[in-house]
Amino acid sequence: MSNPGRPQARGQARKEHILAVALRIFAENGYRGASIAEIAEGCGLSQPGLLHHFPTKADLLIAVLEYRDKLDAEKFHVDDPAPGTAALRRYVDIVEHNAHLPGLVKLFAIVTGEAAVSTAHPARAWAVDRYEKLIGGLAANLRLGVENGSIRADVDTTAVARRVFSMMDGLQLQWLLNPEQVDMPGLFRSFIDDLTVEITA
Amino acid sequence: MSNPGRPQARGQARKEHILAVALRIFAENGYRGASIAEIAEGCGLSQPGLLHHFPTKADLLIAVLEYRDKLDAEKFHVDDPAPGTAALRRYVDIVEHNAHLPGLVKLFAIVTGEAAVSTAHPARAWAVDRYEKLIGGLAANLRLGVENGSIRADVDTTAVARRVFSMMDGLQLQWLLNPEQVDMPGLFRSFIDDLTVEITA
Repeated sequence: MSNPGRPQARGQARKEHILAVALRIFAENGYRGASIAEIAEGCGLSQPGLLHHFPTKADLLIAVLEYRDKLDAEKFHVDDPAPGTAALRRYVDIVEHNAHLPGLVKLFAIVTGEAAVSTAHPARAWAVDRYEKLIGGLAANLRLGVENGSIRADVDTTAVARRVFSMMDGLQLQWLLNPEQVDMPGLFRSFIDDLTVEITA
Repeated sequence: MSNPGRPQARGQARKEHILAVALRIFAENGYRGASIAEIAEGCGLSQPGLLHHFPTKADLLIAVLEYRDKLDAEKFHVDDPAPGTAALRRYVDIVEHNAHLPGLVKLFAIVTGEAAVSTAHPARAWAVDRYEKLIGGLAANLRLGVENGSIRADVDTTAVARRVFSMMDGLQLQWLLNPEQVDMPGLFRSFIDDLTVEITA
């Protein structure tokens, strides 16, 4: 563990503080509605002080998104192979985890929505790549299941992977709009349970 | 049919022109990123001229959303009862139709995303009500199917309805991000086909 008294560790801690503040402000306002002035103020920095770390609002958004993707990938070992339906269970855990982090869910919902409607959005390439990686990774694990005989050979693995992330995204919207009545993790789990039955050989 | 030369019909045509221009600008920019100045310019009106018809940007957004909902409800007869899985087929037709209307899909995607992350958004109540109505309506039709014996009695009709609209919303995002590779109507149709098999008695 690094010593937080050393300059490099202090610099890292300051960057992580900025990313946490920026996440909250982007999550509530989207990229378009968030201002560098508000983020700087939330960090206790001047605007030039903030821009010293991240030269533009777009750089800061991309840094927040990549940082959160990296934390989740490490926490849930999403890059490790998980042949067959084990890969589906991983996403049940992630949705369960996300239900305790509405700010993070909001961030992904609003930034993906903005990027989906505008090819000029700074997170457009991030969003396109993210889905291709998520879908490609899950489809590859499902194909390993086809190869080891645990998943039916006639399953369209890419189509199933697209369904899984669609369900996750759509349930997030319903949950954010109505958190009291929508049991996001329960609904997602039962979807995955039914899907598992459907594709099991 | 009304005579377009009469003042009332001209007023209606002007309003519909404003709604069409506003839809396009809200769809590309969201509520937050759209400006009354740009919408007025797109309509060939002064800002006071536009605000004479719709006093605020929020009024104009709500008018666009309600107008589109009304057109779709009429076109697809969504308020007519459709017991059982017939109600699911209706949404296959709607997604097929939407695949030709990316501007409309963008509008709903961005406004729902903005409203989901902010309780202060002017379309928050519209979005909450819209999902409750869509989900309640589909669940009611599925319950009619349980009652007439076409759908299994142990099906959680509200959970199934939530799944259907989640899948629709999530596939829309993937399609908007990657229209060349994502066959939105085909993926939605195959999801509904599998769901129909799963819930049929």
